[in-house]
Amino acid sequence: MDAMSRIEAGLNLAFMRALPSGPPLLGAAMRHAVFPGGARVRPRLCLAVAYACGDDNPAAADAAACAIELLHCASLVHDDLPCFDDAATRRGRPSVHAAFGAPLAVLAGDALIVLSFQAIAWGVAASPGRIAPLLLTVGQAVGMPNGIVAGQAWESEDKIDLAAYQRAKTGALFSAATVAGAVAAGAEPGPWRAVGEALGEAYQVADDLLDAVADAAECGKPVGQDAAHDRPSAVRTHGVDGALAMLESLARTAAGAIPDCPGAAPLRGLIAQEAKRLVPKSLSRVAA
Amino acid sequence: MDAMSRIEAGLNLAFMRALPSGPPLLGAAMRHAVFPGGARVRPRLCLAVAYACGDDNPAAADAAACAIELLHCASLVHDDLPCFDDAATRRGRPSVHAAFGAPLAVLAGDALIVLSFQAIAWGVAASPGRIAPLLLTVGQAVGMPNGIVAGQAWESEDKIDLAAYQRAKTGALFSAATVAGAVAAGAEPGPWRAVGEALGEAYQVADDLLDAVADAAECGKPVGQDAAHDRPSAVRTHGVDGALAMLESLARTAAGAIPDCPGAAPLRGLIAQEAKRLVPKSLSRVAA
Repeated sequence: MDAMSRIEAGLNLAFMRALPSGPPLLGAAMRHAVFPGGARVRPRLCLAVAYACGDDNPAAADAAACAIELLHCASLVHDDLPCFDDAATRRGRPSVHAAFGAPLAVLAGDALIVLSFQAIAWGVAASPGRIAPLLLTVGQAVGMPNGIVAGQAWESEDKIDLAAYQRAKTGALFSAATVAGAVAAGAEPGPWRAVGEALGEAYQVADDLLDAVADAAECGKPVGQDAAHDRPSAVRTHGVDGALAMLESLARTAAGAIPDCPGAAPLRGLIAQEAKRLVPKSLSRVAA
Repeated sequence: MDAMSRIEAGLNLAFMRALPSGPPLLGAAMRHAVFPGGARVRPRLCLAVAYACGDDNPAAADAAACAIELLHCASLVHDDLPCFDDAATRRGRPSVHAAFGAPLAVLAGDALIVLSFQAIAWGVAASPGRIAPLLLTVGQAVGMPNGIVAGQAWESEDKIDLAAYQRAKTGALFSAATVAGAVAAGAEPGPWRAVGEALGEAYQVADDLLDAVADAAECGKPVGQDAAHDRPSAVRTHGVDGALAMLESLARTAAGAIPDCPGAAPLRGLIAQEAKRLVPKSLSRVAA
């Protein structure tokens, strides 16, 4: 099964286990947040690393990948809420609170966080020694002090720690994706953190580029938000050309940080391909 | 160490591990949600069951108890939000969103959910075989289809499943407290669910009584909310005397459901004592 099929199957399995009954609108709001997905970048990265490390326990890798995607979806639902970005659209469709109201959006985010930890318990039970490291990897990526929730919270501070903000807001889940992929496959996770960190930075830069130069149709969500909310952005600091150069450099850094493992070469190829895909269409047409 | 000291120490340990740095206001909002606590009823119940079952791994029991209290605190923070109860006070102090704003209240709830799962990973790592059952016990109490988040979501449905609503809104975390206590101590958890279910119902009835007859000072939060929000309540259905009789009967049911175990007798005594404490002061004065 290819990576995308494994991810969709894993997500569907988690929903089948958790949503046999219960309040129907909450179930619908949770599904709306997760299906149809975006590029599933983080879980694909997690599976790619597990695969590169030998993938000796595919159920554990699938669970780790799904947990990370569920947490990503949960964070999008909460970030879109009226008290944060107040975004009416996401992935080209109404955001969860626009479609279901703020109460169900809050609860859908909560339930997706819980579901991500349940997915680990279900999928990794056969390798009990890997559960705690996976939980801690994922928990660190989401909670205090450096996870995505902490990243979002920096926006509520008078004095923002910019490096901590960006590392937490985007980088944390990418690092977790690579580290969790290695842990799920029983490999030494240490060297993989740097790969995820560089890729996380690359995606943040790509997101800043999209926000600055793409239209809402390409982006699937409102654009121009960084300037409108006076948020830090690589484009606002370094200009479009500077941001493009950063994106390429970060992809090279990530590929260079991959440790010796059975699947290092194809993983490097995947990263190079992904770096090209990340350049907004309007810019890649100009460059071509 | 007595149960209350174990619980406070466990919660402090989780905060020390998770909050060495990070955005200060989010850390303060999380602390505000957890300290000073209320009666810590659910974690005390969890520890009491673990103790009754022999408490062979106190670190695991402490972690389970803390996880359950953190999830309870998270649910209070989110339930108080303007889009739900819009409660300005909680435990006699400003609610988290009243003190820190809605964005940090959303994020504090999220981070506390994550922290509860981290607490399990930290505390139970030495008994890896107990991690997955504990995760699933706790996850089931919070997520879909029957956990507290699902319970809150029933309030957004046009047609409410009243039994499912009450079981999920209050009962789920009580059942989890007893089951998790048994799992943490390596005991057979099955029989303990009925104990937690009856106690959860008893606490729901006690909460309905408080809301109907206590003043805000005794309650520590606004009263008269069930009638104001047209919510189901044992007092609205059965009257004050009927609700009092239910409370006593449920406490007897809980005590009667305790399985054979080393500490069954003191646990029965604790439940009888707790059932008395739960009667609102104004009613116990009349009864005395």
